[in-house]
Amino acid sequence: MALDDNWFSEIHEGAGSAFSLRIRAKLHEEQSPFQKIEVYDTTDWGHLMVIDGCTMVSGRDNFIYHEMMAHPALFTHPSPGQVAIIGGGDCGTLREVLRHPEVAHVVQVDIDERVTRVSEQYFPELCEANDDPRAELLFIDGIRWIEDVTPGSLDVIIVDSTDPVGPGEVLFTPAFYGACHRALAEGGLVVQQSESPLLHMPLLERMYRSLAEAGFDDARSLFFPLPIYPSGWWSATIGTRGGDLTGFRSEAAATSGLQTRYYNAGIHRAALAQPEFFRLAVQDWMRPG
Amino acid sequence: MALDDNWFSEIHEGAGSAFSLRIRAKLHEEQSPFQKIEVYDTTDWGHLMVIDGCTMVSGRDNFIYHEMMAHPALFTHPSPGQVAIIGGGDCGTLREVLRHPEVAHVVQVDIDERVTRVSEQYFPELCEANDDPRAELLFIDGIRWIEDVTPGSLDVIIVDSTDPVGPGEVLFTPAFYGACHRALAEGGLVVQQSESPLLHMPLLERMYRSLAEAGFDDARSLFFPLPIYPSGWWSATIGTRGGDLTGFRSEAAATSGLQTRYYNAGIHRAALAQPEFFRLAVQDWMRPG
Repeated sequence: MALDDNWFSEIHEGAGSAFSLRIRAKLHEEQSPFQKIEVYDTTDWGHLMVIDGCTMVSGRDNFIYHEMMAHPALFTHPSPGQVAIIGGGDCGTLREVLRHPEVAHVVQVDIDERVTRVSEQYFPELCEANDDPRAELLFIDGIRWIEDVTPGSLDVIIVDSTDPVGPGEVLFTPAFYGACHRALAEGGLVVQQSESPLLHMPLLERMYRSLAEAGFDDARSLFFPLPIYPSGWWSATIGTRGGDLTGFRSEAAATSGLQTRYYNAGIHRAALAQPEFFRLAVQDWMRPG
Repeated sequence: MALDDNWFSEIHEGAGSAFSLRIRAKLHEEQSPFQKIEVYDTTDWGHLMVIDGCTMVSGRDNFIYHEMMAHPALFTHPSPGQVAIIGGGDCGTLREVLRHPEVAHVVQVDIDERVTRVSEQYFPELCEANDDPRAELLFIDGIRWIEDVTPGSLDVIIVDSTDPVGPGEVLFTPAFYGACHRALAEGGLVVQQSESPLLHMPLLERMYRSLAEAGFDDARSLFFPLPIYPSGWWSATIGTRGGDLTGFRSEAAATSGLQTRYYNAGIHRAALAQPEFFRLAVQDWMRPG
């Protein structure tokens, strides 16, 4: 059956696949100084934000992504007081981070203020914590920011970025990971969205290598479903500067009372399980345990 | 961007989403007595089998589905000697079942012989165990077969069926589960593909209720990625007649030496973790533990 004008389609050229959502209307379109931002009203997935033709956030499934970008890292660090988010302009990850009382301060650095303004308008639920006094929103280049930040001043860096093509490419280089490493205090963590385990294993293997080259002592990936992203199966990868990735504060996670829809302590543990093909590919880059 | 004739698209009407694969050619098309069977050559996903317009099997991701339909159930039952597969005509699940030396006999009952013949031609790797002397392939109505089989004669029933619409609908009813319950020996298990946790929670809740009504003592769902199925996130649900679903033969799973690509003991444990929204929806139907 053909997909007519009532559908928004994202074609994943390299993967030979495409994902489409049925739409009612285009609610917004603008060319910001950095990218094209569109918002659609879909029939079954709520609002959909699209940046440069790639689906970014839908009302139906973003809870999985945002919870998994925030809670596993924050429950792995023993005391995540100082947090930075690079990217993350839709503010959904920020909201989840701010649910943790241990967080004293979180700086979100997204180069494109328009993403946040559009999110405030069409995804107000993701932005409901933006006025938290612990949150600081900067609209500047996150890479420059992380290079200039006081060394050793951060506990957790969350890289909530676009794909590693075009402007996002530099976020997957040893140079960027080196800057993150310098910015982290001892025991600190970086967590970054790391694409599809089914489609992007070369990228994931390169990430493990690059994190090691940049001085990170260990790395672990988290796996979770993400229907609107290519293959519907996604990952985030954590690297640590001297911390321990073999466990997490599971008691705190189980008793936190966080109002989540996907994450819980069991899901955290489960997300760390490595599919057999993945384990074989990255085992040399991980500390045993 | 529009999807032209170089793409096969499956539209999920109820979900307002669609998934497409880029194709090189249509290799096969026939109307069997039961359904329309097509095979495409895709650019990046190997061969693709489509039944009545729905993607069934691709060369790229079927390993996840077939491993997860077979190994968790077989490593949960203490001694899975007698196994039946209802549906499963592509024979991929059968192949995985036959990797278990404990299996003495497996009957596969798929009403449509043409699916198996087409699979032998275009997915020979899935059919490589069809000649195993422990395997018996029947091409008759699986529902009638399970109703007539000797009561208490099976250890594991795997329902590897199409979606619960049209002919597949009856496979999700209390009457069918009742027939499975009678067919199982004490401690026996039924495992059935149970659709997308994101899209089909009403079906999953009905399944838990129906399994309980049919006399099953406990049920547990397994979650796994399945890119070519709606939402890319899928589940299988296990019900037990008097057995224990709170654990599995994890030592055997870890040391089995099975040549898997997705499944391992860690993944088995992880697949049982319930997303928070799922836990809240089904908790009343599960035995604690």
